[in-house]
Amino acid sequence: MTPSTETLTAERILEATEEVLRRHGPAKATVVDVARALGVSHGSVYRHFRTKAALREAVTKRWLDRTSASLTGIAAEPRDPEARLRDWLAALFTAKRRKAGDDPELFATYLVLTGENVEAVGAHITDLTGQLTRIIRDGADTGAFTATDPATTARAVFHATARFHDPGYAQDWDQPDIEAQFEAVVDLVVRGLRA
Amino acid sequence: MTPSTETLTAERILEATEEVLRRHGPAKATVVDVARALGVSHGSVYRHFRTKAALREAVTKRWLDRTSASLTGIAAEPRDPEARLRDWLAALFTAKRRKAGDDPELFATYLVLTGENVEAVGAHITDLTGQLTRIIRDGADTGAFTATDPATTARAVFHATARFHDPGYAQDWDQPDIEAQFEAVVDLVVRGLRA
Repeated sequence: MTPSTETLTAERILEATEEVLRRHGPAKATVVDVARALGVSHGSVYRHFRTKAALREAVTKRWLDRTSASLTGIAAEPRDPEARLRDWLAALFTAKRRKAGDDPELFATYLVLTGENVEAVGAHITDLTGQLTRIIRDGADTGAFTATDPATTARAVFHATARFHDPGYAQDWDQPDIEAQFEAVVDLVVRGLRA
Repeated sequence: MTPSTETLTAERILEATEEVLRRHGPAKATVVDVARALGVSHGSVYRHFRTKAALREAVTKRWLDRTSASLTGIAAEPRDPEARLRDWLAALFTAKRRKAGDDPELFATYLVLTGENVEAVGAHITDLTGQLTRIIRDGADTGAFTATDPATTARAVFHATARFHDPGYAQDWDQPDIEAQFEAVVDLVVRGLRA
């Protein structure tokens, strides 16, 4: 257990919250549980997160942001938009599969939390489609893609590839030919952007 | 209630099973429940369906087949493959939305049943992607589409449009711009096929 004399930051509270979720599942992430895990008074947790709902939303957002952060770099790279799009979609799929596969119980716990925190999920999707919009706009600027409305096209690409990032499909991600399925959809989408 | 003197066909039993499901939810579709609803001995139901599992699988298959049957005609029409593909995808989306919207409780009940009957669902998906393969092969034959492997491409089209037929997305189907989302994905997919 982290000694309670360390400065109690929001990040430290969220780390402890994730540890509580990992050990005990979605029901146990309350301010009292987290304060107990940190060995601090619950008043000191309340100073950072005023309600149980705020704490749960923040830990959900932190979990979602870990995925987007790993993709931001790819979206911003100054190189061929088609290669960048393929790499970005592959990185998104890899990140989601890793989350689902490395710790299935924590993944299931976070699925409960995302169901409760639709605003955090909406912001996450806006962030991801914003990154896609940037790549598609760059492609339209160089003439690699024909999109006239990059934001609408980005959303269509996000929807068309849902099988490879929507957690609702996690049970299909260990199918033996899932990589071939992914490649077939990405090829179709990329050809659609080029045309 | 249907008089028990009528000939007891498999179809009559399945109709009664669906009625039992509609009234009482997924737990109640047992042979005994259905025999009671028909006013017949359960022995006479067992003559058609030897187990509760067989009865539940057959009623699930019947429900899924109602969707595919409405699409077979479109897949087989001797006309422009691109228009046929667009109409087929729109008809699939319409059929699924209608099922979800007209009777949400029965839809939820059938979702429980499809979860139990993965083989019936697999056969349904094989049927649908087979219809798509036919349209895409026709398009490749006329030169409208460039697909070299129509079956693989058909599966990619099915996956890319999952948001508009997978029952897991039913809660999104009354979003105000869902038609625009559908058009954007279908346009992207059709351009990908043409290229």
